[in-house]
This record gives sequence, C-alpha cells and structure tokens, in this order.
Amino acid sequence: MTPGDDTRFELVDEEAKWEGRIVTVKVARFRYPDGEVAEREIVSHPGAVAMVAHDEEHVWLVRQPREATGDPDLLELPAGKLDEDGETPLECGQRELAEEIGKAAEHWEHVTEYVSSVGIMDEVVHVYLATGLRDEHAEAEHNERIEIVRWPLADLDGAIAATRDAKTLIGLLWLKAHSAD
Amino acid sequence: MTPGDDTRFELVDEEAKWEGRIVTVKVARFRYPDGEVAEREIVSHPGAVAMVAHDEEHVWLVRQPREATGDPDLLELPAGKLDEDGETPLECGQRELAEEIGKAAEHWEHVTEYVSSVGIMDEVVHVYLATGLRDEHAEAEHNERIEIVRWPLADLDGAIAATRDAKTLIGLLWLKAHSAD
Repeated sequence: MTPGDDTRFELVDEEAKWEGRIVTVKVARFRYPDGEVAEREIVSHPGAVAMVAHDEEHVWLVRQPREATGDPDLLELPAGKLDEDGETPLECGQRELAEEIGKAAEHWEHVTEYVSSVGIMDEVVHVYLATGLRDEHAEAEHNERIEIVRWPLADLDGAIAATRDAKTLIGLLWLKAHSAD
Repeated sequence: MTPGDDTRFELVDEEAKWEGRIVTVKVARFRYPDGEVAEREIVSHPGAVAMVAHDEEHVWLVRQPREATGDPDLLELPAGKLDEDGETPLECGQRELAEEIGKAAEHWEHVTEYVSSVGIMDEVVHVYLATGLRDEHAEAEHNERIEIVRWPLADLDGAIAATRDAKTLIGLLWLKAHSAD
C-alpha cells in the first residue's frame, strides 16, 4: 500500500453555520476510500503574514492587547491578515511591516507557511525573514495600542520566553536554530 | 507611563453565535481605559496537548488526514484535545501518548504553552518533552488513519521541512534549538 492511500478524502457536502466579519464557520462531511464519512467543524480564516524583521542587532517586535486570549500586552512578530483583494502574501508583508513598525526591508525570504490549528481551522500563516531594514515612517499607521519593541538579538531566548504567540515562537525559534548554523 | 496601562481591557458584553461539538463562536465587546470599545469575533476551543517524544535516536511522530486544511497525510507531533472533565494537561498528554503511539514516558518536561491564532481564538496548546519511553501497547487506540512515524533525530531538519503544522514546528524547532546548546 502506498502510504496515504486510505487517507485521501473528498468533500461530500458542507453547510454554512455562521458568517462573521473575519471568520466563517461551517460543518462539512468528508468521505474516505473505505466509505467512512467524517463530519468536521471548520472555521475559515483569510490567512495571515508575519515578519521576522531584524537589523543584525535587534529583532523588531510589537506588543499589543489581545482580547480573545486575555493578553493585555502580548509580545509578537509584526503581522497582519491577508485581507485585501488580490494582494500576495509578500505584498501583504511589505504593507504590514510599514504600517506596524514603519520599516521597509531590502531582502525578503519566505521562511515557512504553517496551519494554525489543523483540526478545526483553515488559517495559513506565511512567515518571512525581512532584513536590510530602512525607515519608511510615511507609511506607519497610528495605533496607540501597538507598542514597537526593539529586542536585542543577543537575547533571543528572552524573547522566546516572553511570548506565547504561535507565529512569534515559530519565527523566533527558526531564527535561533538558523543563527546556530 | 507604565507599559500596558492603556492596553488593559474589560469585557463589556458577549453574545453566543454558534455552538458546535468542539468549538463555540461568540462576538464580544471590550472597553479600554480611554473609553474606546472594540468588538471581537472569538472562537472558543477547549485547548490541546502535544508531545515531543524521543528515545535519543528517533522522535515519534504521526501522519494523519486533516480535512479542515486539505492535508491527506500531515506530519505531526502526537497530540490531543483537552476534552475530558477534570483532566490536567499532563494527564491528557500521558493518555494521548499511549493512545496515539502506544508509549509511556518516564520523564515529562513542560516546554511551552502557546495560543494558536491570537486574534480570533482562545485555544491554548501545551507542549511537553516526553523521554524515557517504554511500550504501553495495551493503551493504544486503533485508528487505521493514523500512521506512526519514527523520524531519525539526526534528520530533524527534514521533519521540520516536511510539516506545516504549528504545534509540530514549535516542538521540533524547540528541540533543534535545544539540541544545539
């Protein structure tokens, strides 16, 4: 048997349950080759882009309130939702880097894309390494509840210990693993 | 100003929108000290536990179909939902390790807990390092669609490149960063 032969599924039907401004929820049924049908609750999300932006001395992070998880000032990578029509993940990252920390980056490297909560949600998050930073203050959005944080690269472990945000852990752990090469 | 003083929020009210078997969805309003009120869509999830289980030579992973994200055989850490009343995250991890890969572990270390998708969902995932593995086949659940994968620790980079699952990237990148110490 080829691995995976009995794990391919096809959509049987789906029913929309709730539509919000950001997410929609549906219940879908899938059929496997052996005839079994599985029902799944699926939260649909437009996806997001996050940036590991550093200038060799500091990695640029933000702190912001996160109501859903009860965090008043969570330490995070600059990031944003893929919510503008026709915008690629890279273009979204470039726009969000300017809006959130007032920077443009000369070099962009696609680090990974991941699924946030695979059992229940279709959200995909693209993570980029952004280097060769320069000021682009003209583009910065005013948001008094987002604090820009320059964190010393020499204390990457401190930043990893100071957050519990998935995209930030993935980006900073990747950077730490990569720095050790 | 103390950082965070203007980012503390209080719940004003919330309205349930949909209740599924696993997740529930609500719209909640929060008020900041300056009087601004923010509305948020929140997906509530019971939380999960994932295990980085290794025996010095291999890390024990699973492959399984994931309908929500369209992955027929996603490479993942053994994991499970926190869905039994009164069960602690550690007890859940011990149960799931036995059920998914038929193992018990002598040593358990809490590596991190993270929030999966901070803007929209309250899911918290606990990640444990589980070592000192021994067989516990009596506890293994039969699920023909979960394939157990022993991945060589010497090729951790290969496993990181072969998955796009958040908990697995966090666990394996942590292991890689830690191994390099």
